[in-house]
Amino acid sequence: MLTASILTVSDTRSAGTREDTTTALMVQLLEEIGIAIGATRLVPDEQDEIAAAIVELCEGADLVLTSGGTGLAPRDVTPEATRSVIDREAPGIAEAMRAETAQFQRLAWLSRAVAGTRGRTLVINLPGNPKAVRECLGVLRTHRAQHGRRAVQRQLHHSPSSGGSSCHVPPPAATKHRPRAPPWAQWAPCSPHCASI
Amino acid sequence: MLTASILTVSDTRSAGTREDTTTALMVQLLEEIGIAIGATRLVPDEQDEIAAAIVELCEGADLVLTSGGTGLAPRDVTPEATRSVIDREAPGIAEAMRAETAQFQRLAWLSRAVAGTRGRTLVINLPGNPKAVRECLGVLRTHRAQHGRRAVQRQLHHSPSSGGSSCHVPPPAATKHRPRAPPWAQWAPCSPHCASI
Amino acid sequence: MLTASILTVSDTRSAGTREDTTTALMVQLLEEIGIAIGATRLVPDEQDEIAAAIVELCEGADLVLTSGGTGLAPRDVTPEATRSVIDREAPGIAEAMRAETAQFQRLAWLSRAVAGTRGRTLVINLPGNPKAVRECLGVLRTHRAQHGRRAVQRQLHHSPSSGGSSCHVPPPAATKHRPRAPPWAQWAPCSPHCASI
Repeated sequence: MLTASILTVSDTRSAGTREDTTTALMVQLLEEIGIAIGATRLVPDEQDEIAAAIVELCEGADLVLTSGGTGLAPRDVTPEATRSVIDREAPGIAEAMRAETAQFQRLAWLSRAVAGTRGRTLVINLPGNPKAVRECLGVLRTHRAQHGRRAVQRQLHHSPSSGGSSCHVPPPAATKHRPRAPPWAQWAPCSPHCASI
Repeated sequence: MLTASILTVSDTRSAGTREDTTTALMVQLLEEIGIAIGATRLVPDEQDEIAAAIVELCEGADLVLTSGGTGLAPRDVTPEATRSVIDREAPGIAEAMRAETAQFQRLAWLSRAVAGTRGRTLVINLPGNPKAVRECLGVLRTHRAQHGRRAVQRQLHHSPSSGGSSCHVPPPAATKHRPRAPPWAQWAPCSPHCASI
Repeated sequence: MLTASILTVSDTRSAGTREDTTTALMVQLLEEIGIAIGATRLVPDEQDEIAAAIVELCEGADLVLTSGGTGLAPRDVTPEATRSVIDREAPGIAEAMRAETAQFQRLAWLSRAVAGTRGRTLVINLPGNPKAVRECLGVLRTHRAQHGRRAVQRQLHHSPSSGGSSCHVPPPAATKHRPRAPPWAQWAPCSPHCASI
């Protein structure tokens, strides 16, 4: 089971001047598709605080989803904070969210959201607006019909033999050199047609 | 009302060996959708000259639209010049133009166009071909049906009280911390279905 | 006629523990659309070896197509190797491959493929999976119906007068300043509707 931690980025919500409804929505949507919730955090739009929170949340989570601060307003710095702590960017994840939610809301094209890996954790920026969060998570959720069986096969293929295994067949040479696929590897952006999350 | 300044980048047009029809076309298309024209400039494909012209045009314009120099030919350097003077890139704007004009002309995928903000001005690279300029401006123009009312609401919400205002209701706390949204904030890439600009 | 060289990147295939079927498939698909094959190479997922092979293959080829190493697994480093040796990135080519093959396989959005030019050679990363290679080459192949005539015109327009030319009409002034378009200039991602490659 995947574990996701959630970072909500908002000046007004962290100051208490506006109610934070996004975190609870994300928890609900993720649990509905069988993703366990790790930690949740709420920070203001400060680049250093966002970066530190992402680093902290990556410990013990397969996914870190941020919400907010991805636009072009002067205080929006979540993409910069994210880029400063990820190892490798995966531009297609952000492209998919923009291209596929733009059919609901053309302003989605203005999102500067970033996605990428830090170690074995996948970090993805989502928008701050609850409606947009719902649409983006619809794009991202596992397309079980398409990937379910493949994911299981991959998991089997890559699982290292346990210490006391009774299996005498050595693992293929390849697995000596290639680390296991991370647990979110089957968790790709899915079709907007199944965006009824 | 938005004000746009226009920078046409072309070796041949600036040398006078080919007629510049793009600038006049852009002026016409922008005025048709109610955008005022600031300054217009014409420079050769020289990175330093392009960068300097963008910096100059950003003074006093909400939008700076460049045309030309976005391809892969050796002299095409508009994206590099643009990236050197913007503060923050907005990759989705260029993605939208490529994805949505590729249905008219597949070569649109080769465009290296860049978009982003310099201060409160939004800078967007357009292609040099007049037909492609028309298609890209079609993608970018305000989708009034969808955004008109929202834009007005945002404008009202963010407008600071004027010095001699008779209004005694203080602005919401949020506006103390968050600078006003820039005037082009509602100007998102719109659907190709309304690309009849 | 375009000449393409092929670099297959794979730990298992270069070690001989898995058969390399991708190289032969790429040779076949490219020859079917009239592209000549230059050199073919097979290297493990090592950034330095990949970068050195790309540099070598760019000598004498209009196109260098790599296959493999574009995902998010820890050993996937082809995008980093590619970016280290290209002069200019052409993000739209990778965007097109992701957006248009995602309709067949949603995991295509996870690809970190990069494309760009090194000198006059266009370098494009393709995935390692043979089915995905076939889909991506379908997106990339020349859309002859749309571009055929234009490409010929461009070629004529840009061809420098040969040394012993009998033509007394001087070339237009523009061609003095603008180098010839590279031979792959008409080779744009084409519509998925003609992806029957």
